[in-house]
Amino acid sequence: MPAVVTIGETMLRLSPPPGTSLEHAAEFSVRAAGTESNVAITLSRLGTSAGWISRLVDSPLGRRVAAEIRAHGVDVSRVLWTADGRVGTYFVEPAVTPRTARVIYDRAYSAFAEIDPDEVDWAFVRTARHLHLTGITPSLSDRCRALAVRAIAEARRAGLTISFDVNYRARLWPPKDARKALEGVLEGIDVIFSTAEDARTLFDAEGQAEEACGLLARRFRPRVAVVTDDGRCVCAQGDRLVTREGYQVTSVDRIGAGDAFAGGFIHGWLSEESIERGLEYGMAAAALKHTYHGDVAWITLEDVRNLISGQPRWR
Amino acid sequence: MPAVVTIGETMLRLSPPPGTSLEHAAEFSVRAAGTESNVAITLSRLGTSAGWISRLVDSPLGRRVAAEIRAHGVDVSRVLWTADGRVGTYFVEPAVTPRTARVIYDRAYSAFAEIDPDEVDWAFVRTARHLHLTGITPSLSDRCRALAVRAIAEARRAGLTISFDVNYRARLWPPKDARKALEGVLEGIDVIFSTAEDARTLFDAEGQAEEACGLLARRFRPRVAVVTDDGRCVCAQGDRLVTREGYQVTSVDRIGAGDAFAGGFIHGWLSEESIERGLEYGMAAAALKHTYHGDVAWITLEDVRNLISGQPRWR
Amino acid sequence: MPAVVTIGETMLRLSPPPGTSLEHAAEFSVRAAGTESNVAITLSRLGTSAGWISRLVDSPLGRRVAAEIRAHGVDVSRVLWTADGRVGTYFVEPAVTPRTARVIYDRAYSAFAEIDPDEVDWAFVRTARHLHLTGITPSLSDRCRALAVRAIAEARRAGLTISFDVNYRARLWPPKDARKALEGVLEGIDVIFSTAEDARTLFDAEGQAEEACGLLARRFRPRVAVVTDDGRCVCAQGDRLVTREGYQVTSVDRIGAGDAFAGGFIHGWLSEESIERGLEYGMAAAALKHTYHGDVAWITLEDVRNLISGQPRWR
Amino acid sequence: MPAVVTIGETMLRLSPPPGTSLEHAAEFSVRAAGTESNVAITLSRLGTSAGWISRLVDSPLGRRVAAEIRAHGVDVSRVLWTADGRVGTYFVEPAVTPRTARVIYDRAYSAFAEIDPDEVDWAFVRTARHLHLTGITPSLSDRCRALAVRAIAEARRAGLTISFDVNYRARLWPPKDARKALEGVLEGIDVIFSTAEDARTLFDAEGQAEEACGLLARRFRPRVAVVTDDGRCVCAQGDRLVTREGYQVTSVDRIGAGDAFAGGFIHGWLSEESIERGLEYGMAAAALKHTYHGDVAWITLEDVRNLISGQPRWR
Amino acid sequence: MPAVVTIGETMLRLSPPPGTSLEHAAEFSVRAAGTESNVAITLSRLGTSAGWISRLVDSPLGRRVAAEIRAHGVDVSRVLWTADGRVGTYFVEPAVTPRTARVIYDRAYSAFAEIDPDEVDWAFVRTARHLHLTGITPSLSDRCRALAVRAIAEARRAGLTISFDVNYRARLWPPKDARKALEGVLEGIDVIFSTAEDARTLFDAEGQAEEACGLLARRFRPRVAVVTDDGRCVCAQGDRLVTREGYQVTSVDRIGAGDAFAGGFIHGWLSEESIERGLEYGMAAAALKHTYHGDVAWITLEDVRNLISGQPRWR
Amino acid sequence: MPAVVTIGETMLRLSPPPGTSLEHAAEFSVRAAGTESNVAITLSRLGTSAGWISRLVDSPLGRRVAAEIRAHGVDVSRVLWTADGRVGTYFVEPAVTPRTARVIYDRAYSAFAEIDPDEVDWAFVRTARHLHLTGITPSLSDRCRALAVRAIAEARRAGLTISFDVNYRARLWPPKDARKALEGVLEGIDVIFSTAEDARTLFDAEGQAEEACGLLARRFRPRVAVVTDDGRCVCAQGDRLVTREGYQVTSVDRIGAGDAFAGGFIHGWLSEESIERGLEYGMAAAALKHTYHGDVAWITLEDVRNLISGQPRWR
Repeated sequence: MPAVVTIGETMLRLSPPPGTSLEHAAEFSVRAAGTESNVAITLSRLGTSAGWISRLVDSPLGRRVAAEIRAHGVDVSRVLWTADGRVGTYFVEPAVTPRTARVIYDRAYSAFAEIDPDEVDWAFVRTARHLHLTGITPSLSDRCRALAVRAIAEARRAGLTISFDVNYRARLWPPKDARKALEGVLEGIDVIFSTAEDARTLFDAEGQAEEACGLLARRFRPRVAVVTDDGRCVCAQGDRLVTREGYQVTSVDRIGAGDAFAGGFIHGWLSEESIERGLEYGMAAAALKHTYHGDVAWITLEDVRNLISGQPRWR
Repeated sequence: MPAVVTIGETMLRLSPPPGTSLEHAAEFSVRAAGTESNVAITLSRLGTSAGWISRLVDSPLGRRVAAEIRAHGVDVSRVLWTADGRVGTYFVEPAVTPRTARVIYDRAYSAFAEIDPDEVDWAFVRTARHLHLTGITPSLSDRCRALAVRAIAEARRAGLTISFDVNYRARLWPPKDARKALEGVLEGIDVIFSTAEDARTLFDAEGQAEEACGLLARRFRPRVAVVTDDGRCVCAQGDRLVTREGYQVTSVDRIGAGDAFAGGFIHGWLSEESIERGLEYGMAAAALKHTYHGDVAWITLEDVRNLISGQPRWR
Repeated sequence: MPAVVTIGETMLRLSPPPGTSLEHAAEFSVRAAGTESNVAITLSRLGTSAGWISRLVDSPLGRRVAAEIRAHGVDVSRVLWTADGRVGTYFVEPAVTPRTARVIYDRAYSAFAEIDPDEVDWAFVRTARHLHLTGITPSLSDRCRALAVRAIAEARRAGLTISFDVNYRARLWPPKDARKALEGVLEGIDVIFSTAEDARTLFDAEGQAEEACGLLARRFRPRVAVVTDDGRCVCAQGDRLVTREGYQVTSVDRIGAGDAFAGGFIHGWLSEESIERGLEYGMAAAALKHTYHGDVAWITLEDVRNLISGQPRWR
Repeated sequence: MPAVVTIGETMLRLSPPPGTSLEHAAEFSVRAAGTESNVAITLSRLGTSAGWISRLVDSPLGRRVAAEIRAHGVDVSRVLWTADGRVGTYFVEPAVTPRTARVIYDRAYSAFAEIDPDEVDWAFVRTARHLHLTGITPSLSDRCRALAVRAIAEARRAGLTISFDVNYRARLWPPKDARKALEGVLEGIDVIFSTAEDARTLFDAEGQAEEACGLLARRFRPRVAVVTDDGRCVCAQGDRLVTREGYQVTSVDRIGAGDAFAGGFIHGWLSEESIERGLEYGMAAAALKHTYHGDVAWITLEDVRNLISGQPRWR
Repeated sequence: MPAVVTIGETMLRLSPPPGTSLEHAAEFSVRAAGTESNVAITLSRLGTSAGWISRLVDSPLGRRVAAEIRAHGVDVSRVLWTADGRVGTYFVEPAVTPRTARVIYDRAYSAFAEIDPDEVDWAFVRTARHLHLTGITPSLSDRCRALAVRAIAEARRAGLTISFDVNYRARLWPPKDARKALEGVLEGIDVIFSTAEDARTLFDAEGQAEEACGLLARRFRPRVAVVTDDGRCVCAQGDRLVTREGYQVTSVDRIGAGDAFAGGFIHGWLSEESIERGLEYGMAAAALKHTYHGDVAWITLEDVRNLISGQPRWR
Repeated sequence: MPAVVTIGETMLRLSPPPGTSLEHAAEFSVRAAGTESNVAITLSRLGTSAGWISRLVDSPLGRRVAAEIRAHGVDVSRVLWTADGRVGTYFVEPAVTPRTARVIYDRAYSAFAEIDPDEVDWAFVRTARHLHLTGITPSLSDRCRALAVRAIAEARRAGLTISFDVNYRARLWPPKDARKALEGVLEGIDVIFSTAEDARTLFDAEGQAEEACGLLARRFRPRVAVVTDDGRCVCAQGDRLVTREGYQVTSVDRIGAGDAFAGGFIHGWLSEESIERGLEYGMAAAALKHTYHGDVAWITLEDVRNLISGQPRWR
């Protein structure tokens, strides 16, 4: 049974080649991508066993999503398979300065959005050590919101620690709805991840990452609040505030860097019981993610450790 | 103003490279594809001006669909643009003997499915000579069914000739529903196109293409009934039955060949007022379509004429 | 009838993939590219209707050129089609610091170079509001030079405003010839575009963009002279001098940025009657062009406005 | 614990695009490929749980091999990982009539060739129902030969059924050596697979597949002997001889078809206890494999059943 | 010094991917291609040293042409390099039944067309054993016609044998001009190659390949006349007529097969002094050429011999 | 006979597309790459005739390696061809900050590693002016070490100048072994190339490039010692120390830049007898190499001179 379980939606990500337009490119590259499965992949690659629960159509596209995640060693045995419905897609034209990324979500009515919380194998969750969720799930449908609430309840009852990444997406719901939904679930979460910008948008945080982090810590009283801001990160554990500067990166594709951070942090925090190690692993995993196209950080624990220690991995 | 107007939905078609799987291919080729716009493209390329009416999201994907059709000279000025909604997609893994094609339609809830017939610029239709519709449109939504009915009414009132391609898709609606809907619209259509198989499935035709063609002619009393069957085609004009054998083809991609046939037939029938010419142009256009990937027949009138006359086009 | 008409040659642009050599690459990417059609495309995409007049061979290559331009909504109905002749090609190996771009023009003897000014549908020009030409056309052949002179005369007589982009190409003609030819046409043009370097090479401008701009303004007395220099731009309207700094860009491909600038400027100047708006639109369009491979700026008016206002287009 | 366990080497397969040469192609496609893992993949995709035991370097290449196999649900948890050594590679230029395939094996000194049988988790094997081996393993090294002998002994002791695919490769060892080694292991195997040609080369079989099959059945007394020959197959169970004609196929890539056959046969034989079902599933899986590039048959049980029943899978 | 020298023009060949159109493909594959250099490449690959004389621009494109030919070991040291001019290009959309190939020659005004026969290093020719020319050269320009005449005169004086491939191209010159020019050069040639169709078009041959071959033999009195027709070939040596049936091929790309035939024939004829061997080598080389994209036959002498002897080359 | 001869191993270099992983990329680009052949290619492209001696399998892969080098005009006539053995391969995932390059060497047991020095045509070496070797050769096998020693002896006897690039590879041998082997050969070499880092690792150099260069000059008493360090380079000729700053580069691929430097230096030093010219040519060649994928600097002498003189090569 995996040590960490994540629950969420994973879509097909379709992107034109670098420097070409969704309006024009003859081919789109295809990959499975979802914030929760990204975290599970990072964990599995670093050596923390991970499982991912979702709901997929039993079609070539649904099987593809599961296969891409399973390839990294993530346990996908509890995915719910359905004969009907659709696999969500999203189209991304990556940002090139000063052009911002174009993202077209086409995920409404997906098989996951219609999940019934009672279908999930909660015993699989209860035997894990840790549960990871994000703010995207409650935004997708009423059923998904109920799913998140139920997952937290199951995990708590079974004594798991829980992490929650705020991950606000303005294109999925307005701040008002997000705030209301998230206030209901963040209370009592062990590890809260947020960007400084999301903390500003949803919780009226002001100032820098430090202030945002303090606000989250005071407001939701997690064991750890972690706020990232433009490569930097700040972590509050009770009154203690730890900060780390990020690495200089040549960013090939920034999407998924936050998930690599969360995966790296959880790995370090769970395996070495140290928020300092969590931050180090998270920052290194995120920096390495930036260097690859797609959502996946193609890293190993050795890569992360070498980057942290300043040793080149390959001579 | 174009001579022929078509109305229908066009989607993004996403296909893995030949011999690879939707489950695995790193890239999908991307093209706009829809039966009615395919017909309009063939007509425009052959020299009959054509317009296409549809409803699209004003996003890179929607603009792409319009641009790919406009590139061939089709008039897309009456496309309805909407801020919200989605562009339908479909995923195709082409057939390789003995493997049949895999087709995943993901077109529910598209911008076109939610079209309001009152939004359409019917004056644009009324100034044309000919209207072309297919059986896919009424299968998509109640609004689309109403749209087809309205289009036929407008065209009749304005004295246009009308063609209708039965184009039955089992994955969109069951035969019973299709039969009921189509019986309501086929009566009085000038040109009915059907495959022999569709005539069997929907109208209990028996035997060969000749019988199916006769049945359609008797039942719906069109000026012309055209039935294709495995490369052959049969055309009934009153009691007169004309048949043509198809060309031997190396089929690169069969999707769109029926649309090229319809486009070629309409061009020949309208411009030379002869069903024989219609059949010749239709068969040649369809054969040439088979030699290209994607739905588009990259042909000119000269190509079609050279194939008919047995002259090589290029020495 | 389009508001702006442009006249010029468009070629097939053939480029090896980034970081590979024309000597070695297994594939070349293929696009239609020409300074005047680039401007027409930018105008059309921003909402100003545009037409493009040229001369093309009726071959797959010539049809391709027209189709790529028509796809953006540009009116290509007045292109002259010819049975013989060739489509000009050019080969580009883009610059990578410190390597400069390699450009091989292979455009001599093209169908456009042999255009007869009397063939052109001048009525189409006369019904527009604005004509745009560039210094490339008079460099191509005697007939092309006569074409430019005739176009200016027709436009003036019909009361159109005229813009002219100097666009000096050392590989097409020596400065002496260019100077002589351009002096004959620039007199009385409404909007002159030039780079600071071209102003130095052809008109002995000294100093910075400001000086070059002033010199052009005094010498040719346009309503507006616009000089760009390394991302900055300067605009002189009578005695008034307006300058704008450019955006910081990650340049994927700089070719076509000047055309996007001209298209953006003309759009702003025509639609909002303000050189400030012209400069803003031009600078934004040029910056966004830098982020795409090929000559086309895949932009919308909304993209340009969002960049100007500092709002991200896509969250 | 998986129902079927396979043991063997999987390499990186590097192939130029169709119709290009290993001497010249700018890119090679890359896939993991090995006869035993191919069988495991087919089994897993058809619904029979399968595990694959091997030895791999813990490098990006070794991880890739494991990931590609795990993606299909095959249990790779017992792969032995090593810090040193190499991943075998092979280069294939597929056959095009009358050109035969070019195959360059570069697998000497691979991590698998240096496997120590004592390292293997034999308990994993013993808890399965069935073991599958091939004649490639004993050809690779003395250690690999010992591994095959040990595996058979362990399986027998634990009561598993065993299948063995002769799979003679002239480029790996001469017939004399192969004959000697295989005679030592084939005795008492439950299911022997062979091509008619291998039976001729190694065991002096004469005549058609029927004769070869009879000879294998008499000589090694398996429960079932299965001989394939140019699409046909013959199966001997005691005195009973069953034959099946193959499907007509458009062969995109024939490599791996024999493995798909073996996987399909084992699935049918194990799950439905019928050699007729085994042959049907094997023939269908092999035919579908021919339609894909690479060694993998991208099939489901439904695909195989539909082909057998003559129903199209996708309308 | 090479044993065989060829003289002629080689162009850049630009082709869209199989099944796509010159009007639409995003990329064209790029290769150097010319009938005489194709022959030289085949000879060099089979073991007969060969040199190729031409005239090229010293640009990346010209260097590419020379490099692609030199890569096969052909001596290109006598290519004439020029600072100005152009490299000829041609665009090919390969045939797919019933669609014929589209070929767009864009070779007028190339550097080769402007060659001055006096520039050529004739000593290089005179030290060879054999000279190979084709009917394309005299069609290109007056200078090229003079070049062919001069080459024949130089070769004769120095005692070389000469082969000449008629290679009629209707798109380069009308039959009347070709007939007149070729009649002037074919007299006294040692080996004449022609297709049956060219013999019909130019020399009024009637009936089958045998008749055409006989006519050429009587009319121009070569030592050997070789006529190919749809895969068959016929060879006349004085009164003796030898025929060979071709191989069954899956034709990936037929362009260059005639050149592979000529190269194979010359190799066999020169090295084994036998027209039977020449035909065998020519037929095998041509058949293998059909299996590759592009003009080059990626073969070795061993490949050719294995095909002739019916032995598979690679097991 | 070439002016410069190099001896060494060249491998197939296999790389995933930029920003993708060796674990995942569907295609690897393929190129021949080896430090000594890279130097020979640079020399040949700059106009100094060069030959390359090596040992290759006569397979499509071995022929490919020779062909890619021969394409640049390098004399490969003395390559030793063998029926058996393998072509070394290496897999590279290029560095992206902060990720370091991943390099997997798979070159053990290559045909070159088993070379017998007596097989080499030493007369070919003796007729040259200059010999170039690197520290990679002695690391590969005992035979290769003997080959390097023999080559130096032959060259000295025949009066050639000799250059030697230290090129330490930690993944091929430990510093202790490298130091011992190199100390035996560097004594009396005319030109020693080293990076500052290699000088530190192997010869305990301290401080900057200047110190390292002085140390090499004192220790091995070459006519010229050249040390590069992060783009800068320092050259010691007796007591004279010359330094040059590098160019600012956008590095597409840094592999091969050191070889381009060596090739440029040798060209300048040999042809203009000046270490200043050598440094200039070397720095320019290296900078231009950085702008191309793969090991080859696609440059001409004109490119190098234009960069040195600050003139753009192409306007």
